[in-house]
Amino acid sequence: MASEAELLAALSTIFSRVKDESILVGIGDDAAVVKAHLTPIALATDMAVEGTHFSRNWSSLYEIGAKITSANLADIFAMGGRPEYLLVAAALPKNFSVEDIEELALGIADEAASVDAIVVGGDLTFSDRMVISISVFGSVGKPLLRSGAHVGDDLVISKLPGESAAGLELLKRGVLDAKSAEHRNPTVEYEKAQAISAIAHSMCDISDGLISELNHMSDASNVQIVVDKSLLKKVPGFDQLEQLAAELGVDLWEWILHGGEDHAFIATVPGDASLPSGFTKIGTVVQGSRVLVDGFIVEHQGFQHF
Amino acid sequence: MASEAELLAALSTIFSRVKDESILVGIGDDAAVVKAHLTPIALATDMAVEGTHFSRNWSSLYEIGAKITSANLADIFAMGGRPEYLLVAAALPKNFSVEDIEELALGIADEAASVDAIVVGGDLTFSDRMVISISVFGSVGKPLLRSGAHVGDDLVISKLPGESAAGLELLKRGVLDAKSAEHRNPTVEYEKAQAISAIAHSMCDISDGLISELNHMSDASNVQIVVDKSLLKKVPGFDQLEQLAAELGVDLWEWILHGGEDHAFIATVPGDASLPSGFTKIGTVVQGSRVLVDGFIVEHQGFQHF
Repeated sequence: MASEAELLAALSTIFSRVKDESILVGIGDDAAVVKAHLTPIALATDMAVEGTHFSRNWSSLYEIGAKITSANLADIFAMGGRPEYLLVAAALPKNFSVEDIEELALGIADEAASVDAIVVGGDLTFSDRMVISISVFGSVGKPLLRSGAHVGDDLVISKLPGESAAGLELLKRGVLDAKSAEHRNPTVEYEKAQAISAIAHSMCDISDGLISELNHMSDASNVQIVVDKSLLKKVPGFDQLEQLAAELGVDLWEWILHGGEDHAFIATVPGDASLPSGFTKIGTVVQGSRVLVDGFIVEHQGFQHF
Repeated sequence: MASEAELLAALSTIFSRVKDESILVGIGDDAAVVKAHLTPIALATDMAVEGTHFSRNWSSLYEIGAKITSANLADIFAMGGRPEYLLVAAALPKNFSVEDIEELALGIADEAASVDAIVVGGDLTFSDRMVISISVFGSVGKPLLRSGAHVGDDLVISKLPGESAAGLELLKRGVLDAKSAEHRNPTVEYEKAQAISAIAHSMCDISDGLISELNHMSDASNVQIVVDKSLLKKVPGFDQLEQLAAELGVDLWEWILHGGEDHAFIATVPGDASLPSGFTKIGTVVQGSRVLVDGFIVEHQGFQHF
């Protein structure tokens, strides 16, 4: 069994791979110190608990590290910002080996590096059930808020939601293949968030489910959001997801409307805007309140962030 | 049982009590956004796990919230900085009531408010075993590092270490009185950290134990640190702690040298400096390596931060 000092040394080595002149004090002191920031700063945190958010039976430690990191990075992109620094706090089982912690740390470090973000510090402790909490710090010019949707906007989405929920269903049935990869380590298309932020009035990621996030947006913006299933059917991947749902005998629209952890980005944009590549219009913003899908009010189903 | 929405509403209400014009986007979006910062920024995180760092049998939820928060705030003060914004991630048991979460949040919010820091966001999830992770963001002028100790410096301390370990020993024996309060919710003398930072060459808090931190400081500064027990005996409270150790039949010096979670601040200052109120000299910095206590090398006993 590895000692705490050995585990910490392994972490420090991996997280110190990247040097950046903006980091005045890196890993190893009471706190990290980074240079002054001339733009507003976005701050977000996410916590993932083994058994709730991930399973070591289904995902490698690398995938777990990458998945939790991507959830955090997506939060900053969803504000129209760029993530820069991460803090990683982890409670790990006592039997973690140096190789285990290296794999987890590499998943975190690689996902962060994919958007030029760097882990600058953290905390390590022990628990039977793994818990990982990541906080992220980024720059943001003009924050894109849930409250920014205008009447007359189009509602657009970066990819089909529901693939993570579909992956979870497959995993529950013991299918550990490419189709279930979207749950184990969802792809987050950060570059799409950047592309849409140039024209968006409001944006968020839908990690807690499409309808849940649309209800937040509707409440915050004081508008009604109208979703059209016929438009959702045009999002790439719909036919395959419909077929999979039919094969498994599950409710396709439950996956699409309420499945979480997809990290698709939704945005509202002016009605006449030409969309960046990869975005599909799925609805409109009108006067009123609530979220309507094909004419029916669809309610919240819980959320996590505060 | 409270719904997740009710718990989140309670948290948001408590954490939104304080308004500050530097907060551009507060609780409720993908991320918080704060104004640009013209000074360097200190970032730190701490995670606390039920059963390891705290116990609901011994501490109220208010005390637990305050204790975890104070550990984070101390990390920023120990760099010579001022904490400003906090992110709180919590995994809570499903049977938490609105009153429970309010009490926990109040402990966090009040401790933060004691140093004018504000909770700007967080994440809430569920776990049988409570886990709380707080990240803190602060301003720092010239960071005071573990690596700053100079040969010729005096080693000074803000209060007697060991009182938290003594409190833990009392709690284990069922004594839930004023003497054990230092473990349940240790007092952190933030103002002392500020006072010493004006003259210190290096500083840290000793949440992981005096000798552990001195070994870090010695390694990082490439110096030998010489601690004198006769000087430690002059720190206020020594006689009472010695008497308590004798009554309980435990090793007084184990408490003082290796007991963690005290959040006393240690600093090295020029040998001729006049000390701010409340600091006691306990040793000196000389050429060489390692940490000597009354002439004997004393080793690390583990640490958590990376």
